[in-house]
Amino acid sequence: MAGELLALAGGVGGAKLVWGLSQVLPPEQLVVVVNTADDEEFHGLQVSPDLDTVMYTLAGLANPETGWGITGDTTTVLSALERLGAPAWFKLGDRDLATHIRRTELLRKGGTLSAVTAELCRALGVKQRIVPMTDNRVRTSLLTDQGVMAFQEYFVKHRCQPRVRDIMYEGADWASPSPAFEQALQEARAVVYCPSNPFLSLDPILEVLGVRRRLQQFSGPRIAVSPIVGGEAVKGPAAKLFKELGQEPSALAVARRMVGLCSVFVLDTVDQSLAQEVDALGMRAVVADTMMNTPEDKVRLAKQVCGLASPDA
Amino acid sequence: MAGELLALAGGVGGAKLVWGLSQVLPPEQLVVVVNTADDEEFHGLQVSPDLDTVMYTLAGLANPETGWGITGDTTTVLSALERLGAPAWFKLGDRDLATHIRRTELLRKGGTLSAVTAELCRALGVKQRIVPMTDNRVRTSLLTDQGVMAFQEYFVKHRCQPRVRDIMYEGADWASPSPAFEQALQEARAVVYCPSNPFLSLDPILEVLGVRRRLQQFSGPRIAVSPIVGGEAVKGPAAKLFKELGQEPSALAVARRMVGLCSVFVLDTVDQSLAQEVDALGMRAVVADTMMNTPEDKVRLAKQVCGLASPDA
Repeated sequence: MAGELLALAGGVGGAKLVWGLSQVLPPEQLVVVVNTADDEEFHGLQVSPDLDTVMYTLAGLANPETGWGITGDTTTVLSALERLGAPAWFKLGDRDLATHIRRTELLRKGGTLSAVTAELCRALGVKQRIVPMTDNRVRTSLLTDQGVMAFQEYFVKHRCQPRVRDIMYEGADWASPSPAFEQALQEARAVVYCPSNPFLSLDPILEVLGVRRRLQQFSGPRIAVSPIVGGEAVKGPAAKLFKELGQEPSALAVARRMVGLCSVFVLDTVDQSLAQEVDALGMRAVVADTMMNTPEDKVRLAKQVCGLASPDA
Repeated sequence: MAGELLALAGGVGGAKLVWGLSQVLPPEQLVVVVNTADDEEFHGLQVSPDLDTVMYTLAGLANPETGWGITGDTTTVLSALERLGAPAWFKLGDRDLATHIRRTELLRKGGTLSAVTAELCRALGVKQRIVPMTDNRVRTSLLTDQGVMAFQEYFVKHRCQPRVRDIMYEGADWASPSPAFEQALQEARAVVYCPSNPFLSLDPILEVLGVRRRLQQFSGPRIAVSPIVGGEAVKGPAAKLFKELGQEPSALAVARRMVGLCSVFVLDTVDQSLAQEVDALGMRAVVADTMMNTPEDKVRLAKQVCGLASPDA
């Protein structure tokens, strides 16, 4: 099976499938394009949470309990920063901080986020390409019942508790796909939408200038895996957001958002009653066990996805 | 005894006497002006080694074995940075790094080094004023037999081994004294030159625009403590530098450099044979035990210095 597979991913949920794909595909056949609209500056350092989650996962460093951060990391610096009067609500481990210090230095020296990410991956021994969706600045902000909030403020500081009325992706209209994303859009043999939050992880990628149209016109297989299972988000606030934005959360609701963007929609076995309605949206519904609790789960789902992405599927 | 004492200091040697003074004087009577020509950027972070040594010393955090850094500090971040390809020859502990992260953030937000240092001191509970010599950029560089080197490159990376032919204080001609230094030059009742390296710690302060002249014209007591004892530097490369720059290292050689700048010159008991020659330079030679190995040593010397700084001395 030649050619690249282009996976679009956010943080923890997406990283699980990406890890599975990394076990199934040769490294040169996997390009992971990652949401960067969650990026934020903390303590003057550039933090790219989703890029780091995917990078740490493929480097074998990810904390298996949280899904983010580095396993066994300490928080000596954060405690010292707090003593110095800095806000410490965003938890940053010591080894994780080294990534942000290095990234910030290389960016300030003029490197693009693509180039800096590639250098960090190389240093950590990651052979797959992990690529920011754009080298431009895009930032998710949320209009909530408590006012407008930057993403991390909503997500971490307020633990997704405020009611969301609208979501903005500031800068997306002026952002170009990163060079490797651009190339993958032209050359990839298949696209995989990882089971990431539709509003907070995949939409920012889709809103980058021209990306939605390019994916609508993409001629190869386009496989989406539902992040909503049995009406609940596997992780995070996706179900809550569906409700607050006026829709019943379900795999079908996810599929409706993917009309024109995907050719195969993978729903969990618990949602198989929705398969016919998904089919009716003009995409092929495939029922699978999408819960990725163990390494074996991840590999099994990745194999199924790769099967669906092959020319004879 | 009213009025402020203005102490001029570099790093470890100066910090010892400063600590003694802090035990003898009420906090509001001590202004410590610190060399910043050793400041350097590492990993994109602003490091002010001498300011931090004095600050950590007065905060009770200093590592008693090295004299610099924070006692018991770990190096998790530095190891991770090294793994990411960053140069790691300048040892930075984790808690120490928090200081540099915070400083860099506050400077980037527009704070002066004076304001940022005051904020760091406040957070660490330091009540004495610790003041950079200038808020402008001054950098020591050395012309050596291996070419021109930035200070930390010479001092840490090459461990002071290259032969020095000349020393430059880049930016000093355009640098103004920091506001608190300026005020202390006008209002202090006495000046103390701590036993810091004459070339690498005190000269940069003296080279800041107008400072040498202001100290020459200063009307109160001006007490210098020799950093050369028995022809050797108590710590660091001062004796080696004297030789390389063509002078025999001795307390007398230090005193010669202070002509017009100091009224009382404190030499160690082992150098009492030089007292008469020092007197002949137009300053009063005072013999004392200047070795500061224990807290008691530091307090005893500080008391003597304060005695010499009092109006009836």
